[in-house]
Amino acid sequence: MGGDNAPEQIVAGALLAAEQVDATISLAGDPDAIAACMAGAAPASIEIVAARDVVAMGESPRAALRGRDDTSLARAVDLVARGDAQAVVSAGNSGAFMALSARRMGTIAGVRRPAIALSLPSESGHRVLLDAGANADCRPEHLVDFGLMGAVYAEYTLGIKNPRVGLLSIGEEKGKGNELTKAAYDLLEATDLNFRGNVEGGDVFGDTCDVIVCDGFVGNVVLKVTEGAASVLFRQIREAVSRSDELRPVAPALAEALREAASQFDASEHGGALLLGVNGVSLVGHGCSDAKAARNAIRAAHRAVEGGLIEHLREVFAARAGENG
Amino acid sequence: MGGDNAPEQIVAGALLAAEQVDATISLAGDPDAIAACMAGAAPASIEIVAARDVVAMGESPRAALRGRDDTSLARAVDLVARGDAQAVVSAGNSGAFMALSARRMGTIAGVRRPAIALSLPSESGHRVLLDAGANADCRPEHLVDFGLMGAVYAEYTLGIKNPRVGLLSIGEEKGKGNELTKAAYDLLEATDLNFRGNVEGGDVFGDTCDVIVCDGFVGNVVLKVTEGAASVLFRQIREAVSRSDELRPVAPALAEALREAASQFDASEHGGALLLGVNGVSLVGHGCSDAKAARNAIRAAHRAVEGGLIEHLREVFAARAGENG
Repeated sequence: MGGDNAPEQIVAGALLAAEQVDATISLAGDPDAIAACMAGAAPASIEIVAARDVVAMGESPRAALRGRDDTSLARAVDLVARGDAQAVVSAGNSGAFMALSARRMGTIAGVRRPAIALSLPSESGHRVLLDAGANADCRPEHLVDFGLMGAVYAEYTLGIKNPRVGLLSIGEEKGKGNELTKAAYDLLEATDLNFRGNVEGGDVFGDTCDVIVCDGFVGNVVLKVTEGAASVLFRQIREAVSRSDELRPVAPALAEALREAASQFDASEHGGALLLGVNGVSLVGHGCSDAKAARNAIRAAHRAVEGGLIEHLREVFAARAGENG
Repeated sequence: MGGDNAPEQIVAGALLAAEQVDATISLAGDPDAIAACMAGAAPASIEIVAARDVVAMGESPRAALRGRDDTSLARAVDLVARGDAQAVVSAGNSGAFMALSARRMGTIAGVRRPAIALSLPSESGHRVLLDAGANADCRPEHLVDFGLMGAVYAEYTLGIKNPRVGLLSIGEEKGKGNELTKAAYDLLEATDLNFRGNVEGGDVFGDTCDVIVCDGFVGNVVLKVTEGAASVLFRQIREAVSRSDELRPVAPALAEALREAASQFDASEHGGALLLGVNGVSLVGHGCSDAKAARNAIRAAHRAVEGGLIEHLREVFAARAGENG
């Protein structure tokens, strides 16, 4: 029921996913509204979990947590919390979704702060940026957790062997950065991660590493700046094309080429962002998700389950607790 | 003598600027090398200031400060420090240049931390982002200084009346952000700046404000991410064009359209970045500056002098000291 295009597009996305994913898909929400969107389709792999309440997009996470057990968001999260589902996906209120996930699923032992991991395209496949916004203020040890979680995600969900982990900073040399990154550098160096040192903002799109670690303030700014830069560039190119007698006739073909390039910057192509560190796969979709984005989100969540993301995260953090204790 | 293309391109840029700018241009460096680049041209408005030493691009700012009076950088900065010039421009070692500017010119009374102000293109002209990298760790009051300096720069150099000042954060509402921005918000609200509250990463390219304030770590990441995103997008578009039978024939016209759009993201078009807060106009050029970038930098420095940037900064900070004292 959450997101700008719910429930129509979300249900449509679930129907698409049902054809491609070997899993049961539970749709939490108003049964009548959902049934109406299914328009007679009734795949055996889709079931409806009734929820009478909805967390609105603008509500504070706090309001969504307090005694609101019958929201579609709470019902969906509870399926994972109770072990009745392995993954939950929502395009709804992301703050409320993250708070509910952390509160009801709990965090994996040893994880100090769950973080949002964004899967970004790279020339060779994917890379991971985290934290993309869950923790505005971080301590150096949080960035170490992010590095560990990002490496597990890269290896077991995205299939990147021995992923290279970089620390987002200003200047490549050790000793460059702010107090947070300088302290985190030392801690990351002491782990058995494949730590490659500092990377810079431009490396977010380069091929110097597979996992990029930063605090949630910086990560969210990176995400928004990237979207903003891409959007203004596309507009400028379209304007330049419309002014040119030579280019105007090929504008449709060019629009297609731009769309293709843009899709690389579109998180919905990659199914949204994972909240790493909670006891279950929790995938935060874009509020503006359409059917394709919803399908991609379900597929991405399914991949994470198939790869054993949560089990591998538990192992890594348990092993570290063993070492430190 | 500094930068990847010195002295040839820098001297060529000075010759271009000499035709357009009503000012004396002093070139600090090896007189023979400079004369060779002038190739017989000898405009009355260009003079040579001899310097035998050069600060290399890789040297630490510390090494450049210590008893190195005869570097081209020190000689150029000293012209302003002594009052023999109003502005200094360098495409050389930027860390050394900033350290020398602050040390030898001194800071304007009341300015706690000089900051790098980047002039970015916007739909309606220009906007200012600061700090773009001088201060990796900031306190809330530093961001207030940045707001005051950025507003003076926007008004008296870029010609933006009553510039709107935004605080770069994550989330638009007051109360969103990290500890630094939340505290800075309250302080900025208490100034008589035209403060518009929080802006997000996407607003760097939007039209919601004229001055965007952030710490130097975040500002540098924004700058590098923007450059990286633009570069990867252009590559993807060029590749898509080369794969398309319909678009390949118009590739040259399209390349021109892309160049035009790219120039909006190219700091060299806008003359580099100003180090605001020191006692003179100090303009930090790109290391890769060519003649056009060097000319633009000289023109931008000249505009700052003509607009009375330093005098207006002194007035604003003196007035604030009066209010607070």
